[in-house]
Amino acid sequence: MRATGVVVEYNPFHNGHYYHLQESRNITQADCIIAVMSGNFLQRGEPALLSKWKRTKMALLGGADLVIELPYAYATSHAPRFAFGSIFLLQAAGADSFCFGSESGNVSVFHETLDLANSQDQDYQANVSEYMSQGFSYPSAAAKAYGQLNIPLTLDLSKPNNILGYEYIRASRELGSAIKPFTIKRKNADYHDVVLGKGDIASATAIREAVFSHDIEKAASYMPAFTFDLVKEEKQNKGALMNWERFYPLLRYQLLSSSPCELNRFYEVEEGLENRMIEAMKESESFQSFMTRLKTKRYTWTRLQRACLHVLNKIQKDDMHRILDAPPAYLRILGMTETGREYLGSVKKSLELPLVTTVSKHDFEGLKMEAKTSLVYAQGASLNRLDAEKEEYNTPPVMVK
Amino acid sequence: MRATGVVVEYNPFHNGHYYHLQESRNITQADCIIAVMSGNFLQRGEPALLSKWKRTKMALLGGADLVIELPYAYATSHAPRFAFGSIFLLQAAGADSFCFGSESGNVSVFHETLDLANSQDQDYQANVSEYMSQGFSYPSAAAKAYGQLNIPLTLDLSKPNNILGYEYIRASRELGSAIKPFTIKRKNADYHDVVLGKGDIASATAIREAVFSHDIEKAASYMPAFTFDLVKEEKQNKGALMNWERFYPLLRYQLLSSSPCELNRFYEVEEGLENRMIEAMKESESFQSFMTRLKTKRYTWTRLQRACLHVLNKIQKDDMHRILDAPPAYLRILGMTETGREYLGSVKKSLELPLVTTVSKHDFEGLKMEAKTSLVYAQGASLNRLDAEKEEYNTPPVMVK
Repeated sequence: MRATGVVVEYNPFHNGHYYHLQESRNITQADCIIAVMSGNFLQRGEPALLSKWKRTKMALLGGADLVIELPYAYATSHAPRFAFGSIFLLQAAGADSFCFGSESGNVSVFHETLDLANSQDQDYQANVSEYMSQGFSYPSAAAKAYGQLNIPLTLDLSKPNNILGYEYIRASRELGSAIKPFTIKRKNADYHDVVLGKGDIASATAIREAVFSHDIEKAASYMPAFTFDLVKEEKQNKGALMNWERFYPLLRYQLLSSSPCELNRFYEVEEGLENRMIEAMKESESFQSFMTRLKTKRYTWTRLQRACLHVLNKIQKDDMHRILDAPPAYLRILGMTETGREYLGSVKKSLELPLVTTVSKHDFEGLKMEAKTSLVYAQGASLNRLDAEKEEYNTPPVMVK
Repeated sequence: MRATGVVVEYNPFHNGHYYHLQESRNITQADCIIAVMSGNFLQRGEPALLSKWKRTKMALLGGADLVIELPYAYATSHAPRFAFGSIFLLQAAGADSFCFGSESGNVSVFHETLDLANSQDQDYQANVSEYMSQGFSYPSAAAKAYGQLNIPLTLDLSKPNNILGYEYIRASRELGSAIKPFTIKRKNADYHDVVLGKGDIASATAIREAVFSHDIEKAASYMPAFTFDLVKEEKQNKGALMNWERFYPLLRYQLLSSSPCELNRFYEVEEGLENRMIEAMKESESFQSFMTRLKTKRYTWTRLQRACLHVLNKIQKDDMHRILDAPPAYLRILGMTETGREYLGSVKKSLELPLVTTVSKHDFEGLKMEAKTSLVYAQGASLNRLDAEKEEYNTPPVMVK
């Protein structure tokens, strides 16, 4: 069986994602689509709107055949590491190719850009350092440094999906992987759009906005019916839609009951950020106002949100480094279709990583971190139950026909 | 000016307390009543129903002239340490006497009992150890050991106010203090009563029960009008009445995001209690059910609640020991009447401890612990403000004419 891979968050699953899955199957002629998906916390340093189990169901209903969890350590990291973890897992799962959405839509442009950048890597690194010493955040410095290289501007690396695609290809080269990259041009919506546009495609950001508003029906035409129904059901199920505001009371409690020294032990809390966090928390009644106070030129909003995530989840530097010292050690299956099951059966013997379907039977450090963060996520979901542990440790993969 | 001292929690202030203050003034002929009062967390390991500021106001309206804070480290300790801190502060504030409510009502009985117990101290200590090795909790072992001594049963030390009185007198002897003890027989209500009785006196426990119920008016006849109005106002001010349930989400978050080893660093978390806490938390949707699961013969309910309090407030063993290594280092004034102010003026020069009226101007470790716990308390009070810090650091003493 031929398998292609996609890297997704589905926060939530919408028409653009549906189109991406269909097109991936068409252009790769794959029998099976493997989706590497973030768990409960996402790359922009945010809790997912819906739990990984709900999002896995969406993925399977939407056209994926197998959903593999991208571990927390990778799912909440900057683009290079996020991409490395994702491509590593797709390769480990036996995908022949992977297929990402991009603003560009032309895979050879990615290759050429990467070749050129590699040949000028020394200049590039020097430029990045120079801009960072001037106080620019890493992404800004990288973009500026890149702009100074002698590379024709065929690939616009200010676009978020182009950046990720670039990192996917770089990771697959680094891994010496035979996995073949494809890209599909994204339709209409810009990643950062905050308003719903015409047509049936909108950004996940704009869709989330609509979903949280008084009129959730506004979002209906931008999602497949099965997604919309699931989201609506969760919203009616009082307070089950997650965002940072729900976790702010816990974050604030953590900040106000910890010393700067304790906070500094958490991953990505550096250079006195602990003191800024404590100060910003004092006057802030919402996560939004807290973040606004915390923001400086030095760090991007995303980078700061990630640091907050690690404080919330109490992820210490040591723990994170230990996990990141080696590539992911297992393939955790969150769900599959009948086709996904067949595919797994066909490759099982040749896989180099163990398959994890029930967490309670395994002892990987990455899974412990996953469980720890999932319990925190569950507390935001509802203060009146803790079936979360059972859910995390004993839920069998979601099955969809 | 002549001053007498009382040791109080006022959770909340009721007619029994009002009577105690009046009688204390009568029998001691004091010009000024100094109340040493616990802050936001109490001896039974519980958050106070109302903040220390509201309870200070009650105390002053009810007849006290000066309210001094009993630091967290003492306020949440077992009877001997609670009593030591309280009597030490009363002595430091220049009180000539102190006056406690008791079931006995006869101060000479306390003295005699103490003399007899001292003379048989070796037997007593041996008995306590023996009972504890049999698995009894410390208070049970102490009561049983005491029962085995050759002491006529004139003082019933199974009664909570008798125990405290006994410890007050013992502390004052230990301190070699000239401060003279008086006691007043408590009227009607038993400390542990859970139902409102006839007459106008009920236990604070029964009053709290009524206050939390649908019909707060049931409690009205057991409190002075100024107390009742304050409590009612706070209850209407959505959710400002505190109990453990309000803090359970935070405690649970702390338990689920901490390792057993981290929990074991907190004060009074010992002998594997950390593991029991984590297990009990998993299935418990309320603090009540959590505690029921946590309870064993080895520990009293109160002792376990205190351990929970230290986990909630993140009070580490080291921090606590450092503070308890020396007696309280300051006198923190929470409030005063005109008489209290005059009294302070008259003794100011002879006081050996510094007076603290505004916390922000001082740097004592005990005050830092106080602030830390007050911020946690404030978070339970309302998730939508953090004026708590200002309140803790900058509130001047409450003044009542």
